[in-house]
Amino acid sequence: MMVRAPCDLMVLDAAELASLSGPAGPRRGRAQAEIGILPGGSVAVRGGRVVAVGLAKELRKRWKAVQEISASGCLVTPGLVDPHTHAVFVGDRAVEFEMRILGRSYQDIAAAGGGILSTVRAVRAASDAGLEKGLASRLDRMLLQGTTTAEVKSGYGLTLRDEIRQLEAVRRVGNRHSVRLVATFLGAHTVPAEFRKRRAAYVDRVCRRMIPEVARLGLARFCDVFVDRGAFTLAEGRRVLQAARAAGLGLKVHAEEFERTGISSLAARMGAASADHLMRVSDADIRALAASRTVAVCLPVTTLFVGEPRYAPARRMLEAGCAVAVATDLNPGSSHCDSLPLAMSLACLGLRMTPAEALTAVTINAAHALGMGWEVGSLELGKRADLVIWGVPSHRHLPYTMGANLARTVIVDGRVVAERGRLLKAR
Amino acid sequence: MMVRAPCDLMVLDAAELASLSGPAGPRRGRAQAEIGILPGGSVAVRGGRVVAVGLAKELRKRWKAVQEISASGCLVTPGLVDPHTHAVFVGDRAVEFEMRILGRSYQDIAAAGGGILSTVRAVRAASDAGLEKGLASRLDRMLLQGTTTAEVKSGYGLTLRDEIRQLEAVRRVGNRHSVRLVATFLGAHTVPAEFRKRRAAYVDRVCRRMIPEVARLGLARFCDVFVDRGAFTLAEGRRVLQAARAAGLGLKVHAEEFERTGISSLAARMGAASADHLMRVSDADIRALAASRTVAVCLPVTTLFVGEPRYAPARRMLEAGCAVAVATDLNPGSSHCDSLPLAMSLACLGLRMTPAEALTAVTINAAHALGMGWEVGSLELGKRADLVIWGVPSHRHLPYTMGANLARTVIVDGRVVAERGRLLKAR
Repeated sequence: MMVRAPCDLMVLDAAELASLSGPAGPRRGRAQAEIGILPGGSVAVRGGRVVAVGLAKELRKRWKAVQEISASGCLVTPGLVDPHTHAVFVGDRAVEFEMRILGRSYQDIAAAGGGILSTVRAVRAASDAGLEKGLASRLDRMLLQGTTTAEVKSGYGLTLRDEIRQLEAVRRVGNRHSVRLVATFLGAHTVPAEFRKRRAAYVDRVCRRMIPEVARLGLARFCDVFVDRGAFTLAEGRRVLQAARAAGLGLKVHAEEFERTGISSLAARMGAASADHLMRVSDADIRALAASRTVAVCLPVTTLFVGEPRYAPARRMLEAGCAVAVATDLNPGSSHCDSLPLAMSLACLGLRMTPAEALTAVTINAAHALGMGWEVGSLELGKRADLVIWGVPSHRHLPYTMGANLARTVIVDGRVVAERGRLLKAR
Repeated sequence: MMVRAPCDLMVLDAAELASLSGPAGPRRGRAQAEIGILPGGSVAVRGGRVVAVGLAKELRKRWKAVQEISASGCLVTPGLVDPHTHAVFVGDRAVEFEMRILGRSYQDIAAAGGGILSTVRAVRAASDAGLEKGLASRLDRMLLQGTTTAEVKSGYGLTLRDEIRQLEAVRRVGNRHSVRLVATFLGAHTVPAEFRKRRAAYVDRVCRRMIPEVARLGLARFCDVFVDRGAFTLAEGRRVLQAARAAGLGLKVHAEEFERTGISSLAARMGAASADHLMRVSDADIRALAASRTVAVCLPVTTLFVGEPRYAPARRMLEAGCAVAVATDLNPGSSHCDSLPLAMSLACLGLRMTPAEALTAVTINAAHALGMGWEVGSLELGKRADLVIWGVPSHRHLPYTMGANLARTVIVDGRVVAERGRLLKAR
């Protein structure tokens, strides 16, 4: 008789297991539709890692689990990865939501002292505990909807002290919350009010003082810059990226959202992990992204939320061979949405991605946009055992079903952390 | 000392109580933004009815409740009313969802034997228990998201027997489920395959045999007809509505969705309870609706889901003095969405309605679209005590917050039926 190795957990008999297994690296172009489907698939977990993927019959021959969970009738996917959020803020901008409906543009509202700067005022006035509480409650809701890894940007402090306070909140909450966090420094989110007439001095400050200090403290893995109309110029963006690279931070950019600036091409040439938004990306930018290791992160909820007429040209990017990821962009102004499944629906309906392409976009490609493709984003041997059992039978049903939360069981590092809409333990 | 009257339940100290109180009848035009806000508002319930609305201090002087629920920090609204669903079906059309993304139109898919007719085949083949189970599970999810009254249409049977089976499923499930149901006969949903070359004979059958029999059995309150390209003509629609009126049924129409036919003007002249879809409504139609008692029901999720470029001109309708309601259109083909809060977000983002107008659209105006404005849709003395406590502080935050389910406590007829994402008893 064969001796079976002990393991901690087996998730058994999924109607459809979408493992996202495949060659290393982000999925590009047509390969983005390859999601490693195994009907009847099961997963074995030990020490928080995936130790086997296959049919239950095979797995049971080799492994004996402490806990077994049936996924009968259900889709099983890797835990979802949200590669672009601004989730550490306080307050809200519900009144602006109404102003925009009544015809004011995002830029109008910013010019009138609302917009990002109103959240900056709120964050500067908030306590550390307040920042942590706001972030933790948003992560709770994200986790309940299947997100197990998320990027969180600073960018509502805009002083060294307040940027560090935001990033420290991310670190402290990340240490105790089930959602795995990746911190990004976004001091170059907008020019703060006190530097309005001295924008060059603010860019100087970001590059010479803030970036080196954030890097020295190890508070962020990435540095991001918002290059656009009403934000920073291409030349300013280049300076920020150069300073970040010099300090050893990974690079990200807010690119071509309201105006085409070419920052995405520059980001691609500089080896950025991602270029995000891309609603007005040019053909040349697309070629640069396709030729690079930079992931194109689309934010379709934002397009809907700010009332822009056109979504990013995701199909053209896919056809050109870009690796496309999708994120919520969770923030109080332009995308007050915590749900990657809803972002997937809009990826299909707005970006015209297929359900398989959308799933790749919120798993393995999103993981690569965070430099974590080696650790999360697929169910493969040795990777983190982050997975979601969904109350639908296939990956097509996930974006097709809008409204109700479909995540039945959420597992992080091999532990069940949420079940049928409830968190299993206080974090 | 004053004697306090006993009551069953008090919901106390809402951050914002939106009672939707006001003059009788649907809210029209600018009045649609009047939602009866009472900061710090409380509600007392007795015998399943609202017996008092006011501040807690006042209510406590007059009433002594068996149960008290704090709504501190929360928005309280009437239970939401979904005035247009096709919720009694089996199977799904997730594959079509993908086909549409790949470029096939709703009409293409229907012409290829998919679309409504594929659901008709599934419904005809389903058992009664299967029909009931599908409907009940959808109602569970709707209730968890704040819907306490819903219209459900037949229209996937298209034989007298199968239409009656659908309507009987609605009746049986309605008798045991907390969601209050209103049944609509939609035999004229599409021409069934067996009548493809004899459409006049099918219209005859609907008018002479099915409508009288459904009315005789008391299985439906309304009769609806789908007048559009690929469905029925204006003349056929008129016949159906005339037969329905003769049989004593209320009238509803699927109007001006893919093509302008003028059925909405006709419905207004005939005193229909509602005209629904209206994406291609003309100025003349809008004038006719504004001058009538017919509620204009917009379905923004459907517009998004079928990939149409333009939403219904809700602002023009509001400015003309129409009463506008919003529904999910829950169905397996063109709107697989069970969430009125999501429909409210799209009412704001797509239809450009304000949060207050959107709330009116899914409460009192939706109730009037079902002829139930005297019973539900607002928190006023004598009305059903259907209400929702939301985990947000104001009505603006409801459409502004996308993703997570915000309904904290759902109360029907004065009983708590759902709490933090769980149904409180098996139905």
